Amino acid sequence: MPSPETDAPRGPIIPIGGAEAKTGTRDILTRVLALAGGPDARIAVIPTASELADTGDRYAKLFHDLGAAHVDVLEITEREHAHVPGAVETVERATGIFMTGGNQLRLSTILGGTPLAQAIRRQNAAGTVVAGTSAGAAVIPEHMIAAGATGPTPTTEKVTLAPGMGLTNRLVIDQHFRQRDRLGRLLTAVSYNPFATGVGIDEDTALVLGPDNVFEVIGSGTVTVVDPSELTYSSMDSARRNQPVSLIGLRVHVLAAGCTYDTEARTAAAPARVPYLDEDEDPVPDES
Amino acid sequence: MPSPETDAPRGPIIPIGGAEAKTGTRDILTRVLALAGGPDARIAVIPTASELADTGDRYAKLFHDLGAAHVDVLEITEREHAHVPGAVETVERATGIFMTGGNQLRLSTILGGTPLAQAIRRQNAAGTVVAGTSAGAAVIPEHMIAAGATGPTPTTEKVTLAPGMGLTNRLVIDQHFRQRDRLGRLLTAVSYNPFATGVGIDEDTALVLGPDNVFEVIGSGTVTVVDPSELTYSSMDSARRNQPVSLIGLRVHVLAAGCTYDTEARTAAAPARVPYLDEDEDPVPDES
Repeated sequence: MPSPETDAPRGPIIPIGGAEAKTGTRDILTRVLALAGGPDARIAVIPTASELADTGDRYAKLFHDLGAAHVDVLEITEREHAHVPGAVETVERATGIFMTGGNQLRLSTILGGTPLAQAIRRQNAAGTVVAGTSAGAAVIPEHMIAAGATGPTPTTEKVTLAPGMGLTNRLVIDQHFRQRDRLGRLLTAVSYNPFATGVGIDEDTALVLGPDNVFEVIGSGTVTVVDPSELTYSSMDSARRNQPVSLIGLRVHVLAAGCTYDTEARTAAAPARVPYLDEDEDPVPDES
Repeated sequence: MPSPETDAPRGPIIPIGGAEAKTGTRDILTRVLALAGGPDARIAVIPTASELADTGDRYAKLFHDLGAAHVDVLEITEREHAHVPGAVETVERATGIFMTGGNQLRLSTILGGTPLAQAIRRQNAAGTVVAGTSAGAAVIPEHMIAAGATGPTPTTEKVTLAPGMGLTNRLVIDQHFRQRDRLGRLLTAVSYNPFATGVGIDEDTALVLGPDNVFEVIGSGTVTVVDPSELTYSSMDSARRNQPVSLIGLRVHVLAAGCTYDTEARTAAAPARVPYLDEDEDPVPDES
């Protein structure tokens, strides 16, 4: 999706399911940093979702430890802070933007409609990677899961949707997915209007949505894809309050690291198969 | 907003607050018909929101009585009907599209993501007027008010949002506004993410949103505009469940017929003042 202003491709979008590894290989944060320019990166950390005072500094240290030259922490805790020119300029200068976890309604109520939110959208449209973990992942799409109940079954009131940051309208994103048993609320969200694809992202797992609208799964868990495009029946409009909803014809994929999903064609692909080799086996047998 | 394919301006969008006059001057339906081409109009009526069998035919008769040459009623009651090429062609041929009242979740769950919904979006982008009353108005924007509680005060759970048809993302639309005391749920919807403008449309009242994103109010009631762009504080992210939410800095306009509102500049304008003339007074006094 080229930006209307620059013709550059949109930047990658990386929603993370929360609790990404902060020691060891740190696959997810390493990928975020690489897409932001590696050692030359200038990362803007937005800890607005969190009410803990040290969340921003904690991520600054993580990115520094991974080799980032510059990390700016934007302390935005009131709507007026998101109108300050200096904050907007920090986002405009960044080569990568990272939103921490916390409460996604803090992100939408404090940033929604402000110059800072517009700058994040503009930067992503012009090519800058935007990543977010947990609440920071939930706020990425146009339709944000703001809250909801646990459990596997969709019911009429299981989810609260609110407008998110609108970086993509192809996905509705849930996080801490397997850990918090959130299939029911993702199905509920998708069934209200079966046009978007639902993705439930486990902890320490992420997807990297490229400018071609294909995403790759990274990390240690799975991404559950709920594709409603072939849905033939939904009782969402007629089910009684808090009663289960019938959904006929959903297509579901469970994707671990290396799998990809094309959000336009709505097709999943396994990673290229690497043949398993026994250590004693000769990988290239002689022709004989 | 020019269509990417045709460069033609987007067609008018007319959300109606329900219960529009069906006898007398019928200002609203007359305006819909005029924007669809007057006597040459070909109106496609989509009664999907309604569960009454005669809703479509009733509007067909209304438009015929007002002088429309052609009215097609699309009986779409299952998702598979919205994949039928003939139905899509009827929408593609139409010079005006009208969605009736009923339950907006029927519209989103039956049409969402189907070729018919895509055809409606494409037609509007290419210049065709799209109007909807009550549920048919609610489904027009990207963020649809699907359900909610009555009363004037915003509370954390007062509204259920769901993805709508996405013809505009500048407005969140409520209807039967004064008649059903819906200010609280509109404020709740707007406060989740203060980027869009909330409009509460009374019965027998409508707004005509032109391609320049300015709307004019028509009909016998008022449109209540809630502009959150100067909001300085919202407690939506911290208020307890079902407790009132504080919102500081909202701007509100109440607009009757003839008033206009610019959704980009966020400015309202009164109609040009027509001087009141006493019948016995000479409208052009002699200079003497």
